[in-house]
Amino acid sequence: MSSAVKREKFQQAWARIREELLSHIAQEGMPADAVEWYGKNLDYNVPGGKLNRGISVTDTAEILKGAPLNDDEYFKAAVLGWGVELMQAFFLVADDIMDTSITRRGQPCWYRAQGIGMVAINDAIMLEGAIYFLLKKHFRSEPYYVDLLELFHDTTYQTEMGQLIDLITAPEDHVDLNRFSLEKHRLIVIYKTAYYSFYLPVALAMYMSNVPTTYTLNGKTIDPYKVALSILLPLGEYFQVQDDFLDFSAPPELLGKIGTDIVDNKCSWCINTALAVATPQQRAMLDANYGRKDPASEARVKEVFEAVGVRERYAKYEADVYGRLTALIDGIPESPERGTLKREIFTSFLEKIYKRTK
Amino acid sequence: MSSAVKREKFQQAWARIREELLSHIAQEGMPADAVEWYGKNLDYNVPGGKLNRGISVTDTAEILKGAPLNDDEYFKAAVLGWGVELMQAFFLVADDIMDTSITRRGQPCWYRAQGIGMVAINDAIMLEGAIYFLLKKHFRSEPYYVDLLELFHDTTYQTEMGQLIDLITAPEDHVDLNRFSLEKHRLIVIYKTAYYSFYLPVALAMYMSNVPTTYTLNGKTIDPYKVALSILLPLGEYFQVQDDFLDFSAPPELLGKIGTDIVDNKCSWCINTALAVATPQQRAMLDANYGRKDPASEARVKEVFEAVGVRERYAKYEADVYGRLTALIDGIPESPERGTLKREIFTSFLEKIYKRTK
Repeated sequence: MSSAVKREKFQQAWARIREELLSHIAQEGMPADAVEWYGKNLDYNVPGGKLNRGISVTDTAEILKGAPLNDDEYFKAAVLGWGVELMQAFFLVADDIMDTSITRRGQPCWYRAQGIGMVAINDAIMLEGAIYFLLKKHFRSEPYYVDLLELFHDTTYQTEMGQLIDLITAPEDHVDLNRFSLEKHRLIVIYKTAYYSFYLPVALAMYMSNVPTTYTLNGKTIDPYKVALSILLPLGEYFQVQDDFLDFSAPPELLGKIGTDIVDNKCSWCINTALAVATPQQRAMLDANYGRKDPASEARVKEVFEAVGVRERYAKYEADVYGRLTALIDGIPESPERGTLKREIFTSFLEKIYKRTK
Repeated sequence: MSSAVKREKFQQAWARIREELLSHIAQEGMPADAVEWYGKNLDYNVPGGKLNRGISVTDTAEILKGAPLNDDEYFKAAVLGWGVELMQAFFLVADDIMDTSITRRGQPCWYRAQGIGMVAINDAIMLEGAIYFLLKKHFRSEPYYVDLLELFHDTTYQTEMGQLIDLITAPEDHVDLNRFSLEKHRLIVIYKTAYYSFYLPVALAMYMSNVPTTYTLNGKTIDPYKVALSILLPLGEYFQVQDDFLDFSAPPELLGKIGTDIVDNKCSWCINTALAVATPQQRAMLDANYGRKDPASEARVKEVFEAVGVRERYAKYEADVYGRLTALIDGIPESPERGTLKREIFTSFLEKIYKRTK
């Protein structure tokens, strides 16, 4: 199935899910203006992204089945996928307020949209609430229901921890590069991005596909959720490192946006890589210019990035991590049996990410 | 046990819970400054309230047992009670930002505390995340674990719905009394307050005490959670109506604070009662003066409240609702059997509320 057709099918499931959410709150007795408000919140914040995270739930479920999903299986996987998208929307609406961001996905951030303001905080947490309503509605009688609930809880808490470290490490209004390090960057990326963007969708599909917490293959005991985690966290880290690198290096016309990590004092892989190898003069240059709102400062930071060889270092990092991830994936023992891990789950992610340019 | 001793015992449980929350995130690898930040968030926002909601979980569990709780039972009930307090803290931290409030519990609101700002949004949702960490840690192996999770989910979503209606009905910066009505007031109060403040603590204690979803007594089938809901929602409504009335009528030296509902354009019971019976002249007076920041406007609104007899109407409401609630409570069939409802659960709430003056 082409990725455009896949996207279309996934969006059709959203139309049904959206309707379920709105009829539920109407049945609870909410007045028409509140139902309408919630509808706008959903429409504005949930379906407009790339949907990669959500679609990877249906993709993974299909790989695990080894055959196309039937309608019922597809819809259930799509509910979980939209659960991930709702979670992402919850985080983005809230993060945009915390970061005083201006636009998101080519439109004003929700809290800056006409007539919204700080009500956006309640709107964000209602997006989170929608996840548990949907899980209850569609998965309550499944033996893995409680696993789904715990997975969403754990992942939410981990992402909030990542957001906390990020916020106190790199406040937009106070530059202090002493707080930065590649270690800190790794921690932020794993907690703030990798768990919810990579592990969550795959683990959801695994639970739905009745992958047990442990099984034996060729006399070897396998803990498939731990195996998935051991690959998807470094994969998520790689994805974010790449994202950081593209923010600095990709031509805006290719990237579709102008990188702002340097002026926004972001704890990005590029600055941390530069800090790790900078001479005292280069370090002074970074201290004086990182996180400043003027183009001349930004240009001086970019000069240091070039001088320390951030591009070459990234190329080396990418080749290394690709090799490491490939070896990890090749090490997964496979069997045609249902309910066991398939390497394709991970290679499909890796191939989408490797050497991407936008 | 005196209420001061009860409070002290409940707070001792918090010391242990707080430690569990902090060691967990430290074990996850969070840096020291993030652990310290989370500790401050917990200390500032969780234990400083009246703790009525939390303590009512341990109270209810004791009434249901019909004997003092042992240490293990007490701690488990206290974890649930602190779960309610964490949920309340989560709402209050977020609501204070949405309402641009200045102080809370005699100190600056968290988002206005030194160096916090909009990080408070993430802090609020971490308080929510703490609930599910604690439930998993202490209740995972209990048969009623999933009931606890669903109860917290449902209640959170209901409270957010209530907050949404309240925010769009009574925005602080735009007065439109046409949006108000006693019906709307009832809906806001039930959703925003009654579910989480009254039904949640009792239902948590019921699950913990293994009260089944249905049982038979003297040949009658009883659905105890529905019975509890049918009493606790009107009881919560009564509590909030009384709160609204005290905001208008109680002397500040007795109430411990100065009422601000009129100047803050709150959708309070008093204004809705006045609107329901106001003459065209009185209505014009309310339209012109409600929600204005000056004392002269406030005084004119109070005049109308007095003229339409808000005090007498409240006295009548209180006598009526007390009678209705008493009749509902008296209608609960009782048995000395474990796992059945006790009238005392409800009378203990009612007696604490009835004719309170602060």
